[in-house]
Amino acid sequence: MESQEKFVQHIASKAEDFSQWYIDVILKAELADYAPVRGCMVIRPHGYALWENMQALLDARLKATGHKNAYFPLFIPESFLRKEAEHVEGFAPEVAWVTKAGSEELPEPLVVRPTSETVIGHMYSKWIKSWRDLPVLINQWANVVRWEKTTRLFLRTSEFLWQEGHTCHRTADEAEEETLKILDIYRRFLSEDLAIPVVAGVKTEREKFAGAVRTYSVEALMSDGRALQAGTSHNLGQNFAKSFDITYLDEDNELKHVWQTSWGVSTRLIGGIIMVHGDERGLALPPRVAPIQVVIVPILAGAARDAVLAAVGSIRERLSKVCRVEADCREEYSPGWKFNEWELKGVPIRLEIGPRDLKAGQVVLVRRDTGEKTAVPMDGLESAVTDLLDDVQKGLYQRAQRFVDENTRFAEDYDSFKETIESHRGFIDAPWCGDSACEAAIKEETGVTIRCLPLGRPSKPGKCIRCGKDADTWVYFARAY
Amino acid sequence: MESQEKFVQHIASKAEDFSQWYIDVILKAELADYAPVRGCMVIRPHGYALWENMQALLDARLKATGHKNAYFPLFIPESFLRKEAEHVEGFAPEVAWVTKAGSEELPEPLVVRPTSETVIGHMYSKWIKSWRDLPVLINQWANVVRWEKTTRLFLRTSEFLWQEGHTCHRTADEAEEETLKILDIYRRFLSEDLAIPVVAGVKTEREKFAGAVRTYSVEALMSDGRALQAGTSHNLGQNFAKSFDITYLDEDNELKHVWQTSWGVSTRLIGGIIMVHGDERGLALPPRVAPIQVVIVPILAGAARDAVLAAVGSIRERLSKVCRVEADCREEYSPGWKFNEWELKGVPIRLEIGPRDLKAGQVVLVRRDTGEKTAVPMDGLESAVTDLLDDVQKGLYQRAQRFVDENTRFAEDYDSFKETIESHRGFIDAPWCGDSACEAAIKEETGVTIRCLPLGRPSKPGKCIRCGKDADTWVYFARAY
Repeated sequence: MESQEKFVQHIASKAEDFSQWYIDVILKAELADYAPVRGCMVIRPHGYALWENMQALLDARLKATGHKNAYFPLFIPESFLRKEAEHVEGFAPEVAWVTKAGSEELPEPLVVRPTSETVIGHMYSKWIKSWRDLPVLINQWANVVRWEKTTRLFLRTSEFLWQEGHTCHRTADEAEEETLKILDIYRRFLSEDLAIPVVAGVKTEREKFAGAVRTYSVEALMSDGRALQAGTSHNLGQNFAKSFDITYLDEDNELKHVWQTSWGVSTRLIGGIIMVHGDERGLALPPRVAPIQVVIVPILAGAARDAVLAAVGSIRERLSKVCRVEADCREEYSPGWKFNEWELKGVPIRLEIGPRDLKAGQVVLVRRDTGEKTAVPMDGLESAVTDLLDDVQKGLYQRAQRFVDENTRFAEDYDSFKETIESHRGFIDAPWCGDSACEAAIKEETGVTIRCLPLGRPSKPGKCIRCGKDADTWVYFARAY
Repeated sequence: MESQEKFVQHIASKAEDFSQWYIDVILKAELADYAPVRGCMVIRPHGYALWENMQALLDARLKATGHKNAYFPLFIPESFLRKEAEHVEGFAPEVAWVTKAGSEELPEPLVVRPTSETVIGHMYSKWIKSWRDLPVLINQWANVVRWEKTTRLFLRTSEFLWQEGHTCHRTADEAEEETLKILDIYRRFLSEDLAIPVVAGVKTEREKFAGAVRTYSVEALMSDGRALQAGTSHNLGQNFAKSFDITYLDEDNELKHVWQTSWGVSTRLIGGIIMVHGDERGLALPPRVAPIQVVIVPILAGAARDAVLAAVGSIRERLSKVCRVEADCREEYSPGWKFNEWELKGVPIRLEIGPRDLKAGQVVLVRRDTGEKTAVPMDGLESAVTDLLDDVQKGLYQRAQRFVDENTRFAEDYDSFKETIESHRGFIDAPWCGDSACEAAIKEETGVTIRCLPLGRPSKPGKCIRCGKDADTWVYFARAY
């Protein structure tokens, strides 16, 4: 017989080797695995259940604001990609090409969608006739492919899952309003559901989406001090409307081009959750998206075994009405092994119950985020658990927000900027003249990019850290994933 | 100004031109549209919302039986497809090939998944070690591509959406049990949620899945008398386990190959819903999956306009707690136009309210399936509506079942078989000797295929309609989509 007790999974130390820790957490918590095709991943059930919860919450926010889902085709004719000049330049180097079907060469190669502005633009030009057809507010959940040179599970994979919204409006103002509305939905989704605080801002011209007039993003700070672009919302202006001839007859009987937006978040956010909340013991999932919110681990030793098992059954039944609960009653693993296993998998609350608890009419609740243990009476257990889930959700957010606050520093000149980068990571809030040449030089010289120009801040006098010219725009810099 | 009143959409007569009627319903009810890539479709919001409801109901049935969702990659190395001999023979002629990424030729061409047994088999061989890891019960919702020569919206498209389950078991019996369990889930999903009665049975050797030991299917009868294979459940035996070396260490310390199943239903089912329930007025959706279950159409003429609008708001609010309701208060369209529009789109119940109803403290409910009108008091409206939704759901099922009953005929010899085919369509229940040669000849000579060998029927003596040999197996024949 093989050993009844598997060893607890070993993961690298987060403090000593963050990159290896990240991969270990993903593989050993069984969130994902490497696929046999270079740069692709398999999302395993634990990771996919997390994604499903994220989808459900974001989808509800999008539907509550009038957006509807649809599905557009995976394949895009090559000629479509070429219709918008910046767009093809941005995406052509990284697209996968279908050139053959069965044993026949295709007359025109097809692109596996890297994003769907073009094919959706083509359909919109068919569907939209009159001002009465506007706005069009459509989203799709889909897989997309971008052939990346260097890949990393969840953060940058050749195929990933995402949602992409594509809207059409009557006026430039409405499109801008939509772009910002979505940015705010992303901000709230990240902060309220994923417990990830973000900085919302505008991308620079250099960093904007290929084909957009203006790109907004929400930027999050990972616990190694590097930034993650967590979601983008693009004001496309009339660029695609002109390339794809998307027009409508307005009330004044004139034919006009629509104004468009597009926006998306992807499975990359799972990487964000891992890197913001995880710790030396593994994953720590925000309760609102955790596939299992409470895991019951009974202490099954001795004569009370059957009584404890019965209690587990009834607790599970009760809690299943208020949260996502599972009981781990496997007897081939020790409670200690299970504690480690479920901590690694990030379950927000562990509920322990043994013979002594049974006698005392209580259970022990253990928070994943702080490790804090509380004995809780069996009466009113439901509200104790749901309250604690709320506390964990808030606790994770506050810890992450504190980390951002502590790791956002000012720099007024290039020396202190470079010193700050050397001595630690995080956001650096510094003045920039607005010139792409300075931006490029800073990236070249330091590896740091402008994450965004944060929204809603008053201008503040300063001098561009690179060229020294007057600059009243302060921007967030960081090393980024 | 353009005309304020769009003309009601014209659709072909179902009785006179079923094929055109089918396409008209799809395009004009805005379920789907043709994509710019040959054989591909765009699923529009009304169609996609229907699919989302179908997904949610089937997904819940699968999760309730212990299945978990995951996501496997879109691309499959060519070499994988070649590992299972029958499988590659079945799928190679219709796969799309990715041969280039960016500007580089790939070292090994990739197949865009037509189904995922091979790539999932590869992962299972990595993941499964011990009998404790079994069973593995994984499902995925995904897009797949099969380059079809002739295509038809929803029924046969180059890309379609589906779920594909892939399970591994310790014994042959367990795999067979799973195969049948899923078949029963499909049967209940079809009959209870989609109101489509089905015949569950085994496919012949000729018609089974490429690589399976045995394929089961649920077969439905469309209202033009042709059959639709609505879902399949395959017992894969150890075919893929041997090709992909999926083994586990059993309790007896021996290394054994797992036993597998796979099964799927697709967006093709939307075609089934249209063809089973639709009528001359368009689509008729089963309430359980209808995106809009109740549409409120107010009569807004005269002095009571504002009072009627206020009543619509409060009715909508009340009903939104018990069903999916929308109010169509557009004033640029007449009530009559809206009646037609929402009938075309298949909404199960129309709720009319006008000044006279308001005075009488009532509304009028109109069933989409029968056209029956009932005046219902405002008090207790919620339960009147939910009861009526149940009635419509049952009514659609019963009508469809009656149609199957009336269109299933016996044939004891080839002459009467051929006569029956000529004179009408539908299922023909006839004896067959079990020989593939007879099966092929019948298809060749009549265009009719064996849909399945229905399950759970006692054997009955007869003579094969083609060769005249003794045959105690009666099977269902039909022309099929």
